[in-house]
Amino acid sequence: MPQAVAGPEIERLIQLLARMPGLGPRSARRAALQLIKKREALLAPLAEAMRVACERIVVCHECGNVDTSDPCTICRDHSRDPSILVVVEDVSDLWALERSGAVTARYHVLGGVLSALDGIRPENLNLSRLVERASVPEMREVILALNATVDGQTTAHYITELLAHLPVKVTKLAHGVPVGGELDYLDEGTLSAAIRQRTAF
Amino acid sequence: MPQAVAGPEIERLIQLLARMPGLGPRSARRAALQLIKKREALLAPLAEAMRVACERIVVCHECGNVDTSDPCTICRDHSRDPSILVVVEDVSDLWALERSGAVTARYHVLGGVLSALDGIRPENLNLSRLVERASVPEMREVILALNATVDGQTTAHYITELLAHLPVKVTKLAHGVPVGGELDYLDEGTLSAAIRQRTAF
Repeated sequence: MPQAVAGPEIERLIQLLARMPGLGPRSARRAALQLIKKREALLAPLAEAMRVACERIVVCHECGNVDTSDPCTICRDHSRDPSILVVVEDVSDLWALERSGAVTARYHVLGGVLSALDGIRPENLNLSRLVERASVPEMREVILALNATVDGQTTAHYITELLAHLPVKVTKLAHGVPVGGELDYLDEGTLSAAIRQRTAF
Repeated sequence: MPQAVAGPEIERLIQLLARMPGLGPRSARRAALQLIKKREALLAPLAEAMRVACERIVVCHECGNVDTSDPCTICRDHSRDPSILVVVEDVSDLWALERSGAVTARYHVLGGVLSALDGIRPENLNLSRLVERASVPEMREVILALNATVDGQTTAHYITELLAHLPVKVTKLAHGVPVGGELDYLDEGTLSAAIRQRTAF
């Protein structure tokens, strides 16, 4: 920790900013200074937005999404297909899928994936609620939209086992060439998946 | 701008975070999510620290430093040498020099450097106050601690001219090999400066 050179109020702001993802001690100092310079335009609105977020944001007890209401806006949206559940690792994945506009069903946020290395076990994930939600009579399909990493795929297998006794179809995202991707830059695993899972033109 | 997927409170937080230096739209989303997850440990204290900073931090009318008092802690520190003034571009440079512990005098923050490209002219900088401060009877030396960039050096030359009529010595930082630096990785300009300004062993 370098010597404190600014006043305690500024030092505290820098220390807290440095704990944000994407900011280190040096960039936190730079950010603090920018915030102080843009006091009216940025610092004041940001302080207020954080206070509001802090007061109002809750975790949806249905799906694990964050919103200002519980159940969240997505869970309360009756136009969404009640027969499909999209399982994601984290809220950021939910946001990514919502941006794509491709999901017309509801989500289930696990809050992580199984990881022997990080000591994350089934009881640390939002799994019992998933089984409950997959057990309702109208449910027909659970889409596992998990990252294509070792931990993500391990979790996908675990969930498939967990739901095996239920009359729901468990599916996963397609592997293949990303839209706009160049073959030359893709790894062998992706390319062989794209060949194996080729579709009619 | 991608489609808004979270509630308006979260979207507003993300948009404001994205305007912080070092954070883009994607990392702002990640940061917002982390803040919401660490509500008690990070979001609430950060909101409070920002509110306090917003209310209390002022710019020192003497030197241009930011602090919770005006004059700032450094300007009010009577143990500091009143015969030397260290001129810096920005408060971040002041902080950097304070961390080094090498400055026992007071500072003068210009708030930028002359730049034809960015349209920054002498009247945009805190220069008239610098001449006033350099004109007091006890002043003996003005150290130009400006960046070794074209704009920094242009500004240094301009200030030297500006103070030429005063009985003060104008000095600049030494050029040379950074402590811990390897010669092989240094540019020719630094190496020739280090040779020219060599000192007795």
